[in-house]
Amino acid sequence: MNDIFIRACRGEKVEYTPVWLMRQAGRYLSEYREVRSKVDFLTLCKTPELAAKVTLQPVDILGVDAAILFSDILICVEAMGMHLEFSEKKGPVLGEPVRTKAGVDRLIIPDTEDSMPFVLDTIKILRRELEQRVPLIGFSGAPFTLATYIIEGGSSKNFVFTKKMMYQNPGLFGALMEKITSTVIEYLSAQIKAGAQAVQFFDSWAGILSTYDYENIIFPYVKTAIKALKKFDVPIFYFVNDCSGILHIAKKCGADVMGIDWRVDMEKATKMIGKKMSVQGNLDPLVLFGPKEQIEERVQDILNKGESARGHIFNLGHGILPETPVENAIAMVEAVHRLSRA
Amino acid sequence: MNDIFIRACRGEKVEYTPVWLMRQAGRYLSEYREVRSKVDFLTLCKTPELAAKVTLQPVDILGVDAAILFSDILICVEAMGMHLEFSEKKGPVLGEPVRTKAGVDRLIIPDTEDSMPFVLDTIKILRRELEQRVPLIGFSGAPFTLATYIIEGGSSKNFVFTKKMMYQNPGLFGALMEKITSTVIEYLSAQIKAGAQAVQFFDSWAGILSTYDYENIIFPYVKTAIKALKKFDVPIFYFVNDCSGILHIAKKCGADVMGIDWRVDMEKATKMIGKKMSVQGNLDPLVLFGPKEQIEERVQDILNKGESARGHIFNLGHGILPETPVENAIAMVEAVHRLSRA
Repeated sequence: MNDIFIRACRGEKVEYTPVWLMRQAGRYLSEYREVRSKVDFLTLCKTPELAAKVTLQPVDILGVDAAILFSDILICVEAMGMHLEFSEKKGPVLGEPVRTKAGVDRLIIPDTEDSMPFVLDTIKILRRELEQRVPLIGFSGAPFTLATYIIEGGSSKNFVFTKKMMYQNPGLFGALMEKITSTVIEYLSAQIKAGAQAVQFFDSWAGILSTYDYENIIFPYVKTAIKALKKFDVPIFYFVNDCSGILHIAKKCGADVMGIDWRVDMEKATKMIGKKMSVQGNLDPLVLFGPKEQIEERVQDILNKGESARGHIFNLGHGILPETPVENAIAMVEAVHRLSRA
Repeated sequence: MNDIFIRACRGEKVEYTPVWLMRQAGRYLSEYREVRSKVDFLTLCKTPELAAKVTLQPVDILGVDAAILFSDILICVEAMGMHLEFSEKKGPVLGEPVRTKAGVDRLIIPDTEDSMPFVLDTIKILRRELEQRVPLIGFSGAPFTLATYIIEGGSSKNFVFTKKMMYQNPGLFGALMEKITSTVIEYLSAQIKAGAQAVQFFDSWAGILSTYDYENIIFPYVKTAIKALKKFDVPIFYFVNDCSGILHIAKKCGADVMGIDWRVDMEKATKMIGKKMSVQGNLDPLVLFGPKEQIEERVQDILNKGESARGHIFNLGHGILPETPVENAIAMVEAVHRLSRA
């Protein structure tokens, strides 16, 4: 098996820089759109054969060094007892946003085998299919990011309800965060037991917090979740979107790899993160809309700046966009491999 | 006149920390809503007596140390030749987004006296009304921020068209940025000549850029615009939203005051900015939804962290939200004054 991804996570010597793309199974691929034309998004997530199929597509098409389970971070929120829908226009919509003690009390800490067996079945299929190829990454939303969806009922601009609860009712907010943290620990433990060879926490919205709030209110839950997974022998990734204001705190999370977005300079980030973690990132996904020579130039820049890291897993700084020309994604992966061998 | 705001901009000794709030004239004030109930937003911007009236409201109600011209950053974009509307749901909508050479060629560099006389008239009324009270700040969008609206045709999530033009057609993007930069220089020069005693550039969207793009593609225009205004004897503010990844570059802009958002730690920012500029910021606007004791605690924290700055102008890290309880905004201003005297 190509284990260069795992070795880079551990900071071992590698022949080239491994690469995968956040949202690499997605609408920019015609093969994905074909599958999606026949089923809705949630059905796709919940049908192991189909979820496994789209997970494998970018491994074949792009030649990436890792596969990531096709799913959505809100799958476990649905299992906590909320009604989940995906609207083409508004994105995810959760029924009855949780803003009261009764609401928090009603949420359960789901057992993954009972309520999300399809996730574990997808992982099992994928491990068979990926044998002798590349490792499989499992994932979950990080506690705060899931909390924002639970409290707002979907995406948000200013996160007014989330911060209101945080500031006005810290006890209730804490109770919610604890329930989510327990859920996430159980969920990722089950994914690892089913065969996930690495796991990533997506903290997509932690970047909306002041340093003060992140450090004092949110970060303890991140550390708790990561610590609970350390007993498994798999690399743990902590990706924080819009991380530059809080990276000096986030790096203390205890994970093996720190995932960073595109708005932070790779060299500064690598220096700040130090030698205790590997780093993942950080090309602006929009660079893939430019000419190939420019993509190559930016890849080289990030490779150079990441050279002093303990280990570097190349990635975009955020999910690949649906409109991205697939040939440019292929060119990026090829450039990472070729330029990092040199 | 209360000139403590101007003195803090210059790094002179002050008896207490001056404070104003971004969007301090706005919907959180019932007095503002009353004016707005009779006219639409654009009419309000373009009617000097009314614009002056709402500009003065927060000076009376909150007791802030500066007034800021009531207007919108897209007023000068309309004057460049685009059709501008404000929709309750979608926010600003600009007709025929500019994405081609013909589009860029059609834009003009407006003469403020000819095409935006109402802005200058508002300033003149305000200078009379504010005599012996507080200074008046004029403002403009920074070149890149205006470019995003011109290219996207309004607000955006991923700024796909902007970055596409930036990467695919750097010559065209540069031509657009030059036209906007000339517009902004003329516009702010006219505001200063009419009586604005300080000016702020709002770079609301520069924070979506990678450090690489900000430094190499955008920042030269920021420096050009600021340099052109240095001949006037008024403090120049450069506010960058979501600035933490680019602050080490932005601080070289040549302005007198660096405005920072709430996601960057005040102590780290102050250290990075050094002694050549004063600093403005940086309370999370959402803290104003919490209890008064907590507001006071956060104000104290920021005052402490800003103590080593050359000068500190207290502000929110972004505009105050419409739903904000006005008594909390008043409490914040009072706390800044009281705690910084101690």
